[in-house]
Amino acid sequence: MANNKYKIGTIGSHSALQILRGAKDEGFETVVFCKKNMTPVYKSFGVADEIIEIKDYSEVFEQCSDNIIMIPHGSFIEHIEKLKEMKGLYYGNKEILDWESDRNQERKWLSNAGIKLPKIFQNASEIDRPVIVKFHGAQGGKGYFLARDEQDFKTKIADHPDKKYQLQEYIIGVPMYIHYFYSVIHEELEVLGFDKRYESNVDSIGRISARDQMALKSVDPSYVVVGNIPLVIRESLLGNVFDMGHKVIKESRKITKNGLFGPFCLEGVLTPEQEFYIFEISARIVAGTNPYISGSPYSYVKYKEEMSTGRRIAREIKQAIEKDRLSEIIN
Amino acid sequence: MANNKYKIGTIGSHSALQILRGAKDEGFETVVFCKKNMTPVYKSFGVADEIIEIKDYSEVFEQCSDNIIMIPHGSFIEHIEKLKEMKGLYYGNKEILDWESDRNQERKWLSNAGIKLPKIFQNASEIDRPVIVKFHGAQGGKGYFLARDEQDFKTKIADHPDKKYQLQEYIIGVPMYIHYFYSVIHEELEVLGFDKRYESNVDSIGRISARDQMALKSVDPSYVVVGNIPLVIRESLLGNVFDMGHKVIKESRKITKNGLFGPFCLEGVLTPEQEFYIFEISARIVAGTNPYISGSPYSYVKYKEEMSTGRRIAREIKQAIEKDRLSEIIN
Amino acid sequence: MANNKYKIGTIGSHSALQILRGAKDEGFETVVFCKKNMTPVYKSFGVADEIIEIKDYSEVFEQCSDNIIMIPHGSFIEHIEKLKEMKGLYYGNKEILDWESDRNQERKWLSNAGIKLPKIFQNASEIDRPVIVKFHGAQGGKGYFLARDEQDFKTKIADHPDKKYQLQEYIIGVPMYIHYFYSVIHEELEVLGFDKRYESNVDSIGRISARDQMALKSVDPSYVVVGNIPLVIRESLLGNVFDMGHKVIKESRKITKNGLFGPFCLEGVLTPEQEFYIFEISARIVAGTNPYISGSPYSYVKYKEEMSTGRRIAREIKQAIEKDRLSEIIN
Repeated sequence: MANNKYKIGTIGSHSALQILRGAKDEGFETVVFCKKNMTPVYKSFGVADEIIEIKDYSEVFEQCSDNIIMIPHGSFIEHIEKLKEMKGLYYGNKEILDWESDRNQERKWLSNAGIKLPKIFQNASEIDRPVIVKFHGAQGGKGYFLARDEQDFKTKIADHPDKKYQLQEYIIGVPMYIHYFYSVIHEELEVLGFDKRYESNVDSIGRISARDQMALKSVDPSYVVVGNIPLVIRESLLGNVFDMGHKVIKESRKITKNGLFGPFCLEGVLTPEQEFYIFEISARIVAGTNPYISGSPYSYVKYKEEMSTGRRIAREIKQAIEKDRLSEIIN
Repeated sequence: MANNKYKIGTIGSHSALQILRGAKDEGFETVVFCKKNMTPVYKSFGVADEIIEIKDYSEVFEQCSDNIIMIPHGSFIEHIEKLKEMKGLYYGNKEILDWESDRNQERKWLSNAGIKLPKIFQNASEIDRPVIVKFHGAQGGKGYFLARDEQDFKTKIADHPDKKYQLQEYIIGVPMYIHYFYSVIHEELEVLGFDKRYESNVDSIGRISARDQMALKSVDPSYVVVGNIPLVIRESLLGNVFDMGHKVIKESRKITKNGLFGPFCLEGVLTPEQEFYIFEISARIVAGTNPYISGSPYSYVKYKEEMSTGRRIAREIKQAIEKDRLSEIIN
Repeated sequence: MANNKYKIGTIGSHSALQILRGAKDEGFETVVFCKKNMTPVYKSFGVADEIIEIKDYSEVFEQCSDNIIMIPHGSFIEHIEKLKEMKGLYYGNKEILDWESDRNQERKWLSNAGIKLPKIFQNASEIDRPVIVKFHGAQGGKGYFLARDEQDFKTKIADHPDKKYQLQEYIIGVPMYIHYFYSVIHEELEVLGFDKRYESNVDSIGRISARDQMALKSVDPSYVVVGNIPLVIRESLLGNVFDMGHKVIKESRKITKNGLFGPFCLEGVLTPEQEFYIFEISARIVAGTNPYISGSPYSYVKYKEEMSTGRRIAREIKQAIEKDRLSEIIN
């Protein structure tokens, strides 16, 4: 069997269960690097052939060996500098990391690709429509707030002295996250599914009546992702969905040598005019694919088997090994 | 094989992926008629044996041949006059179309069947409770608004001069869509699942705090369907769900020769008193079945295989062919 | 076959379809006891080998025979006194019922286990933060209301004279229900999935703009469960999820002889700080597992087959029979 030379490994968090299950379904041995409190999790689910306890995720990058193909996900990104220098086998294009992790570079990439983005205001005096004020750093959506105009912004920002922030146009539309996969082996873009995040507490404040919200003093939304909800998109929008994916791939080949490949996600909202506004790209597997560990409605149409994004990655790697093309997808 | 004389076809939109996947799972060859921008979609998913590009959906009805059984869905309904006259093989009862497409006829059907409906006010002066004002035509939920009384209605309608509208009692309850299938071959009503629509922007306005909504000037809900979310119903309500389905079928046999059969959907809300108020019937497959392309919790109970509504249609056709009863379900 | 001596039975409501499907998947014959209006439901789905009509659920406890293993669910709990005295074979630990059905005992259990609970105020004068006022008895969430302080509470409670209530701290966070299974045979805690309830009308009031809510006079939330929506949790929280489950099991062995086993559910909210506040435990299968009748993302990781909670119960019973350990899980 071609793939018994390599194991598949990841950090024990985010979408590791999916990645490991998918790897085993494609015949790989698996390794998970996790913190002590997560060991019972990976023991219970039985998809990690080896569980290696670490104190900090950054240790992972030192422990990589040359027979473990590491699948990156959201928990890797906090350690981007170490990640870029890691020695072992990394699935994906490391060049993309610089574009994805810098908000200005990311915006340049997407807007040059022809993707519709919410407007960014460089200065509070330019605010001419409602904005969402997003803080920099790893707070994960906590404390973000809306402001209707410059005056409102100034009043509210006073509660957050010394914080760096971005002023982003607030588009009123429903959140929608698109899960793509670009196969290098088949030279083909796939759409594997959709989700919406489940965010605390913003997805529960609507359960408080307006009257009670006005009466209570403390109903300030936070946007901390604590889960994901499966959904499907109106089928007539899929033409646009594929089109956006192709554009992002095409542009990625201008800004990096090998371009974007593997799983990625466009994160945005859909307006009543059925237009997408994208506010972020994730150039790797997203946790929004976790509702689909046994396959999504879309992957079932294409594959007629339990094809998660995690398994799709493993299959790509397996086929690359079989065709002796592994170097094209490993950094 | 009995079914190699016929292909299954549909318009490339709405629930076509499901219909085509289901048809192939039951052994049929498939054809999809789609607009140019949708061709990459059906190419990617690989369930259309033939992709025929059209400029306008109405062309479909001229291109039908007598070996393609056309499965109607929401995108057919925009062309109802051409649909009624189309030559080829149409799965379903065309007589029902007149009842379904006219709001007054539809109401008569449902209320004679004993289904609970929201009250309709013929005149603004009759408004004695909150209403939702729904515009006629193909705007798909855009601009619909709530009014608490006659005065409020008059103020708000002033922004929409010359539009035709319906004044419907606004029932405060959670949206719930019921997916039925009536099998002619087995003379049996089935419940295949439930969903709620994902509507832009009304399903996101609750994410804006009441204080911010009051501050912003532009938070007016629209009800444009951009996706669907899977859900299950409280099991004790299934008795009522089956009862409503049977009543609708029974009444349909009084108003048309062959009655309603195949997939249909009752669309309504469920109140805290656990009562259904139905505001619409769709006499065909609905997009709300798309979360269940690999089967729903309910279809799994009954079939123990990946039985979507699309596949259920194909199986009914297959069995009709085998029993030489195709004429009973084809118009 | 070891299990052909026993049938699996339940009341026809709540999660019976799942329990029966699961029992059949593990090779058991099945019996359902249901009210007349539910007979068409269980006939249609074809998973009950025997359908026994009853007028009132309490009759079930007299009809049990010694070859039917009864699987309890929410509909049993209304008849807790009869349940405790029932003669036949009951899956679960009846001792737990007293702890679960009494709010004070339940609180003692959970807080001694180290689970975080919302604060309870014994007296209105103690209210120092927003509270939700929950009425006792079987109204199922109807009429519950929020109060921001003592004065607000006094004004609102005047509409509900003579009702018994509990004053519970109102935690603003997203609802999250955790589905556990503790296997006696394998001495192992499993996490089978997550859901959120779909409650009428509180899950639809956010669809009414704040302005309209303030204008309408009647937007008072109710919390009546009419369905369930599937979701997945942020993977890094699973460490805590397993930890809470283990603590609850451990404490249950101090308060009862055999402790809690089989399916149970912790019902709570997740705050933006990613902390769980648990407001209830269900010591049996919950309806929130119904979205997963063909398996959840989590059960797929562990079992790689269609493993619902209902089927997991049947498998535990089957293995207990095979190992002659049935008496350990049957009361």
